[in-house]
Formats: sequence, structure tokens, C-alpha cells
Amino acid sequence: MANTLRIGIAGLGNVGVGVLDIIRKHEALLADRAGVAIAVTAVSARDKAKDRGHDLAGLKWFDDPVGLAKSPGIDVFVELMGGEGDPAKSAVEAAIASGKHVITANKALLAHHGAALARAAEAKGVALNFEASVAGGIPIIKALREGLAGNRVTKLFGIMNGTCNYILTKMANEGRSFKEVLKEAQDLGYAEADPTFDIGGFDTAHKLAVVTALAFGTEVNLKAIEIEGIEAITLDDIRNASDMGYKIKLLGVAVSHAEGVEQRVHPTLVPKGSPVSDTDGVFNAVVVKGDFAGDLMLEGRGAGAHPTASAVLSDIIDIARGNLRPAFGIPAAKLKPYRQAPNKAHEGGYYVALELVDRPGAVAAIARILADQRISIESIVQRGKPSKDLQRETATFILITHDTLETSIRAAISKIEQDGHVASKPRLIRIERL
Amino acid sequence: MANTLRIGIAGLGNVGVGVLDIIRKHEALLADRAGVAIAVTAVSARDKAKDRGHDLAGLKWFDDPVGLAKSPGIDVFVELMGGEGDPAKSAVEAAIASGKHVITANKALLAHHGAALARAAEAKGVALNFEASVAGGIPIIKALREGLAGNRVTKLFGIMNGTCNYILTKMANEGRSFKEVLKEAQDLGYAEADPTFDIGGFDTAHKLAVVTALAFGTEVNLKAIEIEGIEAITLDDIRNASDMGYKIKLLGVAVSHAEGVEQRVHPTLVPKGSPVSDTDGVFNAVVVKGDFAGDLMLEGRGAGAHPTASAVLSDIIDIARGNLRPAFGIPAAKLKPYRQAPNKAHEGGYYVALELVDRPGAVAAIARILADQRISIESIVQRGKPSKDLQRETATFILITHDTLETSIRAAISKIEQDGHVASKPRLIRIERL
Repeated sequence: MANTLRIGIAGLGNVGVGVLDIIRKHEALLADRAGVAIAVTAVSARDKAKDRGHDLAGLKWFDDPVGLAKSPGIDVFVELMGGEGDPAKSAVEAAIASGKHVITANKALLAHHGAALARAAEAKGVALNFEASVAGGIPIIKALREGLAGNRVTKLFGIMNGTCNYILTKMANEGRSFKEVLKEAQDLGYAEADPTFDIGGFDTAHKLAVVTALAFGTEVNLKAIEIEGIEAITLDDIRNASDMGYKIKLLGVAVSHAEGVEQRVHPTLVPKGSPVSDTDGVFNAVVVKGDFAGDLMLEGRGAGAHPTASAVLSDIIDIARGNLRPAFGIPAAKLKPYRQAPNKAHEGGYYVALELVDRPGAVAAIARILADQRISIESIVQRGKPSKDLQRETATFILITHDTLETSIRAAISKIEQDGHVASKPRLIRIERL
Repeated sequence: MANTLRIGIAGLGNVGVGVLDIIRKHEALLADRAGVAIAVTAVSARDKAKDRGHDLAGLKWFDDPVGLAKSPGIDVFVELMGGEGDPAKSAVEAAIASGKHVITANKALLAHHGAALARAAEAKGVALNFEASVAGGIPIIKALREGLAGNRVTKLFGIMNGTCNYILTKMANEGRSFKEVLKEAQDLGYAEADPTFDIGGFDTAHKLAVVTALAFGTEVNLKAIEIEGIEAITLDDIRNASDMGYKIKLLGVAVSHAEGVEQRVHPTLVPKGSPVSDTDGVFNAVVVKGDFAGDLMLEGRGAGAHPTASAVLSDIIDIARGNLRPAFGIPAAKLKPYRQAPNKAHEGGYYVALELVDRPGAVAAIARILADQRISIESIVQRGKPSKDLQRETATFILITHDTLETSIRAAISKIEQDGHVASKPRLIRIERL
């Protein structure tokens, strides 16, 4: 490695340029921290002619990222192209095969092929570092892999998608509808033209799959995640939740049970004042429960060119300092096969919104159904609602349950629907407490 | 180092026993994470006969920690005795001199001798790791030394003393006086019989000195810290601050200015809903601003046997994995001499509580004095107060200023006192915003 660690960057979008920004601004500081000089020596991107605000004349250019990955002129291959398939996958594989350390910000690649790539990197004795793949500038990968290395992690959850958090925060603070805020976010460039990947919870799920594997020492399993997005969250839900002392956030949650692992992504009520409840706008936050360290929260900028590039630099300096760990904290051969916890294992509180057909005995009947399922109630709000259809007056009936089993609450709601007490589909949102 | 990393622990109080707890419970997991077995092979403490809940029969016992430090039977010396002087100091020096890696939880030792010890460790090529010295289970040292290695840190602040935070939280939540809550904390063992070290801000100052050096790459300088404790905080201050949208926390604050470094420890108003404002009870939280990563907050358990032991394990596994960095992130020879920022450099908002002699024109005169110092006001509350001395009615007059210079607000208050507008010493509390 001599006195310079030679970096090759594949993908010169915002994050790639951010990495160049840091390396050029902090040249001397980085050398002190790394113990060697850090220099970008080669790059690969689609368009060579594009002005990126940096003089690339001294760098070797590759049209093909796989060519860069194999180049003898680099020690570290930084993959910032994204996407679970090629060219990212073949480039990362080529880099590992030719003995290069790999750094990637690519959560999709890791969520789909993380365990296989970890095995390949280990066989070659090279690093596979991915601090930038989850929660941008927040060093959550390092905290899980190293900071909490003395702990068995029992649970983690977090806000890992800035677009969703921005939308939910705006809805809550400005009393505007999901549709309206989404439109604005798209106009401002915070949300994609097709926002499904973010608002549908899929981006969060990719990140959750990565941190779950790291936290629990299991194989990465994206398919096991139950995913629900924020599209159906109404302003009424946000207001009702707020009245009852909660905020609504899109969380990724992973729990390690004796029976297996539970992973889910869904809108969630979090008690006001609890960690993550004040994580607003584009900020991200992750809470981890360690069996010895207790509860730990990390909060910060989850996206953006410079926070993400800061994470890439942390990975680069780890390599320079010889801090080479197995990708998922333990040898890949020791990662446990993923074992799915049965759905009924989930236990928690629930927010239930019912559009009640306002007739005598409805509330009593519902209370009876809940009691039969041994569900106890934390709070209830009922609001009359002016109805256009005078023949069929309805009232919004909101209740918050104490901890109960997922199967019990679903059975109760199913019974409430069958018995004709509601005018529309009941809405159920999980509550998450530390 | 062979296949076992041999640990010697000096000091078998709560934290030392906590380290034994983790190593014995997670033996296989730790070996996977460390790449070698982790075994405690020797210990030193005052009382050999004391029951610590662990069988120490297989371990070599040293009455003298310096003897343990020099022992050829250990690879890593873990110093958990505390205190800036001997035996901790001479034991750590002996361990370094005999080529042992050192882990210490001793903030006082580091605050007084950190730079010298870092130089000695570097000269010997051994680690000097101290994750456990600041904020217990929160991996703030690793975040600063490694996670944010691509950043120049411009500011950091945090709640780093659980005793103070417990007292302030109890006062706020239960409307009880400082004295009463302190007494309770002492009875419960959360505060020492002589609580000065905690409530006077000195413990926080020791920790601040350590993280400041790491964050800014300067020599450790405890003496430069301006220190004010929480003894004078009244229930009225807490209530007034709350009415105006703030909580009161004891913060350690470090800012890197062009003119030098500013370090201070004092009670502080933080806006409700801002990071650290919801960090209650014995929890700690540290906020760091990086020039590329942006704002990052870490929150968790700042003390306690197991969280602190968790930090020790993180340091042990770093050594096992060969992650050996300079103690303060850059070579000790490159640490900049500490340069003190001039006091006037501090700019911020202030909470000012005046016991106003209630006479016509007092408020107008005070407003004039503030205007003369170009201080603008964010909010004002005035409350009449039933006075026993009917000849001299007073009113509590609280104001929150917008950002201004420390010199300006001090000059204004001095003038207000001179002009005889107040019946007692004005109270000034700084406001800290992200």
C-alpha cells in the first residue's frame, strides 16, 4: 500500500463528487488520520464531458466500471453507482476477485447479495465496507459492527428514509395532505417522479435488511420483511395520534426473538418525547438495544452528498488503518441462516381508527369484542362527524391499545367488520416503544 | 498475541466486574467478533477476599496494579481504578513502557496527562483506548476518532453527567427543589456524599477536555475550561425557561473558532424539541457538528457497570482486530498547542432573570440599557411577586435575548445593577442552539 492509498471511484454523481470534495479539502488532515496519503487515482462514470466542478485531468478514466475495478492502479474500489444488478454487482465482484478492498453505498446490492459478497471478500482477505449504505452521515454501521461489539443486540428500529420523514413532518406541522406535500417534495427534488421506492417503504426495507444482518449475525434477508408504506396515512391519523400523545413515523424495525427474527417496515406511532419522535424533516435516527450497553440512539443527516461522502471517508480510513473486519461483524461462515419469527410473536400497542356506524350499542359491542381477545385499552377518542348521507351517520372512533399480540388485534378487527359496526375499512397502525 | 488476547484488569469495582460479566457471557460471540479468544488472565484490586460474584481462582492476582501492568502474562492492561494520580498513572505508564496496550476509563488521568500518555503509547506502538472514559455506553470516542474522520469538527456539546441530568429532570418533572432532589439522589446512591465533583460541573469538564482534544486535534487542556455547576439553578428558573419553550441542562460545550478554542461547562437553556432537550434522567447525549457530515447526535446510557463495560469491550476488540489509531486520532506530535479563544468570541442567546425593584420607568431603563449594547430581545415575562417587605415591592422580570456577545450582555447587566434597578444579583444562563 506504500505511502498512498489509491482510490478508484465508480459513479461520479453527487456522492462521488462529495468524496472528491472531502479528499481535496482535507488532504493533510486525512493523511494524519489515515497514516498514509489518500488519493483518488482513477474514476469511472457515464459521461466524461460533464462538468463536476473538479479537474479530473490527472485521474485515469474508465468508461467501464469493471475495468476500473480490475485496474492495478487502485487499492480501494468505491462503488457509488447503485442498483442491485450490473454493472454494480459485476464491478464489485471483479474488484474483490482482483484483491481490491471494496467500499459501497449500495444498499440494494447488499440487501440482495450481501452474504455472498461478504464470503467472497473474506476469502480474498479484503474489506467490504458499507457505512454509506444506511443513514448517510450517521456512523450506524460502525456502531453496530464495532462500538457495540460487546453486546448481543436484541432490537433495533429507526427512521431511515428522509423523503418519508420529510413528508410526515410537513403534514404534521403544516396540516397539509399527503398528496399535496408529496407534490411539493417532488418539485423540490426531495422525492422522485416515481416515489414508490421511498414512500412505499422499499428503500427503508433495503437498509433494514443490511443492519439486521449486522445486528443479529444472520444472513441478509430482504424478502422476509413485511413492508407497508406511508401512502395511506391521513392528516386525521396524524392529528388523532397527536391528540393522544404520539407522532407518526415510518420505521424499520427488527427484533430478535427466541423463535427467530422479525423485520418490518411500516408507519408507526411513537410516543412524543421518546427517541426518534423529534427526528424531523430529512433527518434519520436509529435506536439500538444492546444487552449490556442498553439503549443507544444515533441521529443525523441520513442522505445528501456530503454526509454520505463523509461515511465513505470513514470506510477509506478504516482500510488505511488496517481496521479490516468481516463485513457483517463475524465471519461470513458463522452468519446464522435467517429464521423467520412467527407473526404472532409481535407484541405491541396499536392505534385503531374505526368509522363507526353510529347506532346504539356499537361501542359496547366493540368493547366486548376487544375484551374477548383480552385486549386492554389505553385511550379512546370519539368524534361525531357531519355526514352528507343523513341516513347513515358515522363517527370516528379512535382507540389506542395496551400491548397485545398482532394476531389478537387482527382477530378483533375482523370480528368488528363482520358484525357491521363500521362504514369503511378499519385502519390499524402499530405503536413502537423503546 | 497468538489465539488468545490476554487481558489484565486493574480495579474490580462495578465496571471491572461488568467486564468479567460480558467476557464470560459472550465468550463465543466475542471470539467471532475479535478473531481471537478474549480472556481475562490477571487482575488487581484492593481486597482479594471480597465476593464479586465471579470465580477468580484461575486468574493471577496482583496486589499492586503496577505489577500487573508489567506482567508478561497479559497483552492488554485495562485500568479501571480512576484518579488522575497514582496508582493509576504509574500503572498506565508501566504498562505502556512494557509494551502493553492500554484501555482506561479514567477521564481524570486523560484530562491531566492525556497528551503525554498518547506520546508515550505512540512511541511504543501500543494502543491507548478510552471509549469508557466519556459517556459510558455511547460510542462517542469511536464516532469522533473514526466515524467522523473525514470531517473537521467545528462544535460539540453534550450532557455528560448523569447525576446532574437526573437532578434537573426530577426538579422539572416533579416541581421539587434542587436541595430536596439532591438529597434523594444521595439516598439512592446516584450522587456522592460529597456531590461537588458532579454537580459543580467538574466531572463534565474532565470529559469535555478529552473529547475536545479528539474533536479538534489540540492538546488536552482541562484548565482552560470555564466551569459553572447546577447548584444555583432554582425551580423558578426551570419553570420560567419552560414557559418560554426551553429546558435547562448542564452542558459541556466546545467550539473551534478561528481565534482559538472555547470550552465551557454550565447550565444551559436548550429549546424544547431540539436534540438533547429530551435526554432525561441518567441518560447522556452528545451532539457533534462535522463540516461534511452535518449534525450528529448520540444518546444513551452514560454510566453504569454494564454500559461502561460495553465500551471497554469495544476497545478490547479494536486491539484484537489490529485497529490501532493514535489516541487522539492524529499523531501526538501533530496535536496543535491549545489556543484559548477570547471570551468575547462567544456569541449566543441568554436567559436573564432580574428581581426588579418595581418602580416607574425601571423596565424602560432596562430596555434602554440593552438597546445601547445592541442586544435584541426574543421574549419577556414579568410576574408580580407578593413581598413580605411592603416598602420594597419586587417583580420577577425574565428575558430571553437573541444572539449577542458575552461581553455585551455582561456589560448590560453590570449597568442594570449599578443603576439600582434590581433587588438581588441578576441571574444569567446561556442558551445553546444547534
